Amino acid sequence: MRLRNVTNARNALEQHPDLIILDPSKHRGRWQELFDNDKPMYLEIGMGKGQFICGMAQKLPDINFLGLEKYDSVALRALQKIIAAPCPNAMLIRGEAENLPNYFSPGEIGRIYLNFSDPWPRKCHIKRRLTHSNFMDKYKNILITDGEIHLKTDNKQFFEFTLQHLNECGMKFDHISLDLHSQEPVDNVRTEYEDSKSAVGALIYRLVCRFG
Amino acid sequence: MRLRNVTNARNALEQHPDLIILDPSKHRGRWQELFDNDKPMYLEIGMGKGQFICGMAQKLPDINFLGLEKYDSVALRALQKIIAAPCPNAMLIRGEAENLPNYFSPGEIGRIYLNFSDPWPRKCHIKRRLTHSNFMDKYKNILITDGEIHLKTDNKQFFEFTLQHLNECGMKFDHISLDLHSQEPVDNVRTEYEDSKSAVGALIYRLVCRFG
Repeated sequence: MRLRNVTNARNALEQHPDLIILDPSKHRGRWQELFDNDKPMYLEIGMGKGQFICGMAQKLPDINFLGLEKYDSVALRALQKIIAAPCPNAMLIRGEAENLPNYFSPGEIGRIYLNFSDPWPRKCHIKRRLTHSNFMDKYKNILITDGEIHLKTDNKQFFEFTLQHLNECGMKFDHISLDLHSQEPVDNVRTEYEDSKSAVGALIYRLVCRFG
Repeated sequence: MRLRNVTNARNALEQHPDLIILDPSKHRGRWQELFDNDKPMYLEIGMGKGQFICGMAQKLPDINFLGLEKYDSVALRALQKIIAAPCPNAMLIRGEAENLPNYFSPGEIGRIYLNFSDPWPRKCHIKRRLTHSNFMDKYKNILITDGEIHLKTDNKQFFEFTLQHLNECGMKFDHISLDLHSQEPVDNVRTEYEDSKSAVGALIYRLVCRFG
């Protein structure tokens, strides 16, 4: 998700080094030190405007949440949210998914969330999809053994691709929902986008999987 | 699918031993002799009223089609269809899926179709679902190496179960569609049930897979 560029977004981000990390490589292998505890760390890749990461952090105080976002202007919206409703167990990162192994050491992340990732519908962009095997290899590198990936999307083609491709990659599917909101789990935390799509009747798909 | 029992259905079936086989075990390993050729044999398990098997046989004259049905009254409807529109490359079988290895020798079948199988929604009936591993083992036994299974259903829970369970069984997913009729392939042959469900806006799911 890309928002209209916010002037001086980067400057605004730089004012809150305690809430958003702009140089994630420097903390590789030492993220728990930032939280000053040894709780498991869950990572959302593409946190968007931050409703999910804030909601999850409030719901699960015994987990440290990290939200990764590539666009300054979007990260700023999440930052504003976290300033308004402080979460001691949530921290934001300005960074790119392809650099994950530079940000985290092997096994440093306990779980990954992919919420409504860009579907990159054109075939020539297939490698940009966050469920492409190139990215999956990076996730495997930073996840603990048996660490889960939790994915939600409203994009049918992206979900079809993901199921087929991750099956091909040998991933184990722990849970599949083809209409998450028809019997929405009480522990589901919605993203802003999820709220808006559900309101107009879109189907929300969900997959929980892990490396076999 | 179960129809109102048709009186003397079995008697009616017995009148057409050239079109419907009532003692399939007797032909194990020798099905091609019935067709008097060596073309590949594709099997539909649960053929219902026969629209699919007849349509496929007409569309693909270089394939021998076999339609398996457990209920006499349903098989009779398919028989009536095949009598009305003869297909030299289609034959029906009155039999049960659990007995498949008694009907066919290893590698005798080139492809299996599962169309709108009974979803058996209750958990206590999970082993009755035609995509349960108990049945998959039987399919693997009678299929050629790399033989495909083509499945269609409108039942969301059954499709969720199937994707998850077949992934767990190590099957390879060659194709997944979460809304087959949104861009219906020109080679899709609909079942009677598929027509009726599509007419009221139901989503049709499709999976093509094979043993890995």
